[in-house]
Formats: sequence, structure tokens, C-alpha cells
Amino acid sequence: MQTPKVTARAHTNIALVKYWGKKDEQLIIPQNGSLSLTLDHFYTDTTVCLDDNATQDTFILNGIKMDPTKVTKFMDLIRQQANVSTPAIIESVNHVPTMAGLASSASAYAALALAGSKAYRLELSPKDLSRLARRGSGSACRSIYGGFVEWKKGYDDASSYAVPFIENPTWDIKMIAIVVNGAQKKVASRAGMQTVVNTSPYYPAWIKQAELDLENIKQAILAKDFTKMGQIAESSAMRMHALNLSATPHFNYIEAQSLVAITQVEELRAHGIECYYTMDAGPNVKVICQGKDLQAILAKLKQHFADEQLLVSAAGPGAKIITS
Amino acid sequence: MQTPKVTARAHTNIALVKYWGKKDEQLIIPQNGSLSLTLDHFYTDTTVCLDDNATQDTFILNGIKMDPTKVTKFMDLIRQQANVSTPAIIESVNHVPTMAGLASSASAYAALALAGSKAYRLELSPKDLSRLARRGSGSACRSIYGGFVEWKKGYDDASSYAVPFIENPTWDIKMIAIVVNGAQKKVASRAGMQTVVNTSPYYPAWIKQAELDLENIKQAILAKDFTKMGQIAESSAMRMHALNLSATPHFNYIEAQSLVAITQVEELRAHGIECYYTMDAGPNVKVICQGKDLQAILAKLKQHFADEQLLVSAAGPGAKIITS
Repeated sequence: MQTPKVTARAHTNIALVKYWGKKDEQLIIPQNGSLSLTLDHFYTDTTVCLDDNATQDTFILNGIKMDPTKVTKFMDLIRQQANVSTPAIIESVNHVPTMAGLASSASAYAALALAGSKAYRLELSPKDLSRLARRGSGSACRSIYGGFVEWKKGYDDASSYAVPFIENPTWDIKMIAIVVNGAQKKVASRAGMQTVVNTSPYYPAWIKQAELDLENIKQAILAKDFTKMGQIAESSAMRMHALNLSATPHFNYIEAQSLVAITQVEELRAHGIECYYTMDAGPNVKVICQGKDLQAILAKLKQHFADEQLLVSAAGPGAKIITS
Repeated sequence: MQTPKVTARAHTNIALVKYWGKKDEQLIIPQNGSLSLTLDHFYTDTTVCLDDNATQDTFILNGIKMDPTKVTKFMDLIRQQANVSTPAIIESVNHVPTMAGLASSASAYAALALAGSKAYRLELSPKDLSRLARRGSGSACRSIYGGFVEWKKGYDDASSYAVPFIENPTWDIKMIAIVVNGAQKKVASRAGMQTVVNTSPYYPAWIKQAELDLENIKQAILAKDFTKMGQIAESSAMRMHALNLSATPHFNYIEAQSLVAITQVEELRAHGIECYYTMDAGPNVKVICQGKDLQAILAKLKQHFADEQLLVSAAGPGAKIITS
């Protein structure tokens, strides 16, 4: 007997106060709390159905059959809780432009946590869904919720999960992802942050500063103080990239084209158009702005980047079941 | 009566363990010790003669008469010690390619300290010359000596000065200054380091790490361990630039063309040709290598930079009187 298919959709998120470094590699407990904005433009749809006749999971990503090892490891967490050993067929489609190089693991594991737990008839609370998603990819725990989301670092598996901060912001915040054609070989975020935790002399100060940034950005968001929010987000990103430069061996996600994007943002700001940048474990630059300034900012960016390199998002919703 | 002219020559130096941040802005006492290599290729010749009939100093730089205010402030330190109030004519020629944008303040103030003190008939010990040069520009205290030079940070005017570490290295070390055509507006080093000291959460860790780096690079140089020396130098530079990213407001001397240069060095290293990079308060990249690898490195760099952008130096001598 094949159980019905369950399909879930989860959106990606971009951290404004960055998560960078694990306290527990296995359970993915972070060294510091973080805060993100879930985006409407990029999401993953994942369908899970149990497969009684199979001896192992089947994993299809964007229509292509993949090695299921990593997904099986995650599904085992669900099967353990459900006390069921039946394998599953997992079909996942990433609605993120392929060239974007935007982290899809956050939306992927959030969607998989929701679809997978439903398929195995677990009724998880949002909190437990967030904890589960975290085990796949740390930042996935935040994609369970929409809008502004806080990941409370906690100290163990039970206490480390995301909570909604402002799930439906009335603020007209936009984010422009500038897709940079990066040349440099990428250091995977998991490896990069591990190197940083183990070797950067600046890491203890990062942890303390991140906690301060988290408190301050929450106040700024509550007060709808866009300037303060943007400044903290930009500082948090640059301090994270500073950690990478200070590690042994040092590494750098900021590429030549990233600097071009950053310069445009700084020039816009110098001309009174408020916008701020953030960067993650890759060369792309994300620009935070208000809807009223979007067109002016895009016009400037189009002098240096092609239309298809500029992807605009607004705040997006939390993970949800779209068919079952 | 005009006294005879005294001309001194001093060479610039590039720090391998960086000086970044003052404990005392007025006296230029650094927060951490540093270590540099004096270069043979870039130097300043400065001639000083007393001018009995004048009421103020005359300052001629590269043949052009300049506002003497800053130089007068420095000359007053000399006149105070000499107990003479006579103004002077100061003629200075920077033998640094104009486009290089390489810091000339180190060679300039070292040459001025030597020529100026001699012209006023002070017989300063090398230590006191170094202390004097420091008052003009911190890193100038190291240009009193040749080869590898350590700046002992000290804690006051009397205790902060450079000492020779290995004045005549038998090692065939070369440094290639890659002159980058920078677009970004420069943050002056004095302002940049002040912002860092006042705002970077990473600064206390920088001070501790710099002291470790200083001890370790001295061991590496004594052991002629080029790999260890290069790695420490590169790490120290990147940690200094990480400080700038972590400051409020953050700033960045690393430009797109700097990243091109850095990538070339990393590729050379990946192909077994040892070389390391360092950067100061500007976009130029300096490559440290051994003489045996110089041609191979230049051949690779010439794929991306014009001949006149690649300036090769070896270890240079300390400051000296060349005519008097």
C-alpha cells in the first residue's frame, strides 16, 4: 500500500544577524543566535510518500534521481520518531534560479521536515518542526516561519529552534539578490564556519557581538527603524566575512564582482537612497531596501548587472502543506 | 650664515607583522609590536640646511614648494632638542614611482629625522633617531634600520622604538609590489586604525595575536623557514584587513584588482611555487618570495598586470648620510 503523497513548500531565508559557527557539529547547535527574513521569491516544493515495496529511499531533485544517502540520514530522524521503517520517495523541486547560487538548503530541509513528518503521520508542533529542520541544515530551522524569524541558539537538541519574531511584517521591505558570476572556488559553509570556530582569534568576540546585534536588531525592527536595522545587518555580515579573513587558513567569499555590487550600494547611500548589503557563504550580494526606493536602486544596479542577475524578493510566508 | 647641507637617504619598509592601532595618538605609541623588511627599491633623499635669514621653514617636495606646517611641527622636535630656533630649508625627493601609491611616509620621516638631526648638530644614537622618526610616522621608526626590523611597542616616548632584527639578511628574499589602479576612495591609515581601535570588537584579540605572530615570525626568520614566515605575514595582513571590515563604520582597502593579484598568488602556491601576499592601507598587493622563484612569479603576474605595475625589491639598507 502506498500512502498518499504529501507536498510541502518552504521559502528560503537570508540572515540579517548571521549564524556562523556550530557549538555541536552533530546536532547543529549554533554558537550564537541569529535573525533572518524569509523571502517570497525562492522556495522549495517537496513531496514525500511512503514506498512499502522499496528497501531504500528514492530521492529525485529537480527531476533527476540523486544519491539518497544524505536525505535518508535526515528521513531516519523522522522514521525514528514515527517508529516506522518504511522507505519513502522524495521528490524535490527548487524554485531558485539555478544560476543564483543562493543557499537552497534552508528551504529544502524546511520543506522536507514538513512533508516528511506529515507523510509519516507525525503531528509536530512548529517548534518541533523547526528543531527537526535544524538537523538537516542549521538555517533551515528559520524557514519554518515567515517574515522576521529568530533562531534561539539554545544549548541542546531540545532548546535550539527558531521562533517567529514578526511573521507578517507590515513594513515594505525588499531584498535584491545580485547574482554574481563567481570565479573563485567556494568553501562550503559547513567547512568554512568550522575552520573559523577552530582557528579565528576573533571568534569569541564575534559570539558576544552577535548577541548584542541580535538584541539591537530586534529593537530596530520593532521600532521600524530601517536605518538601524540595515546598519546592524551590514555590520553583522562584514564581521562574519572578517572572521573568514582571520581564520587559518584564511578564506574569502568576497569576489571582485561582489565589490562592484557593494560599491554601488555605498554610492546609492551617499546619494541619499537608503540600502544595505549582506553576504553569505558565496559571492552574491543581497541588498536590503524599502519598496519606495526599489526602482531607483535597480536602475543604478542595472548599469553593472544584467536584468537576470537582479532578483527581487519581499517577505515570504512560513512552510506549509500545499497538497496532501 | 648658512650651515652646510646635510643629505640623508632612508628606504621604505613593508611590515610582515602589521602595526595597526595607536595607544597614544600624540606620541605615536603602537598597540602592538611589529616587524618589517626594509626595501632597496623605494627610498627618500632629504636635504636639510639651516636658514638663518628666514622666519619659517621652506619645504620642497619633489621640486615643488609645499606648505611646511607638518614638517615644521616635526622639525620643532629637533630644534627643541638642539635648543636652536633657526628655521631650515628642507628638500625631499621620493624615489618611489609616483603611481605606486606606496606609503612614502616611512622613508620620508626616517630621512628627515637623520638629515634634520645632523643639520642641527645633534648626535643621536640609532635608538633616539628611531624614536624621533616615530613621531613623524609610526612606521618610519623601522626605516632607520635595514633588513628585518622589529618595532618594540614600548609604553611611552622613551621605550617605543625599532631595533634591527637581522640587518643584513643572507636570505634571498624578494618583494614584488603590484601596483593596482585603485578606484575606491582611500581611508587614510591614521583615520582607519583609529576607527578600528575605537570600534572593532575584534581589536583586543588582534593585539594578543599580533604579539604571538611577532614571536613566531622571529623564530621563522632565524630558522630561515620561508614557509612559516610567509604564512604568518599573510595571516597578519588578512587579520588587519579583517579588523577594518569589523569596525563601525566598516571600510575595506581590498579592491577588485587586489583580489586578482591575491588569486594569482594562491594559484602559484597551488602549483608549488611558494609566495605570500601582504597588503597595507591601500589596494596594492605586495608579494613575498625567494629569488629563485622570482621569474616564474613575474611571468604569471604579467598575464594580468603591465610591466610597470610590477616593482621588484630586495632587502634594503638602513638610513644613512649620503652627503654632508
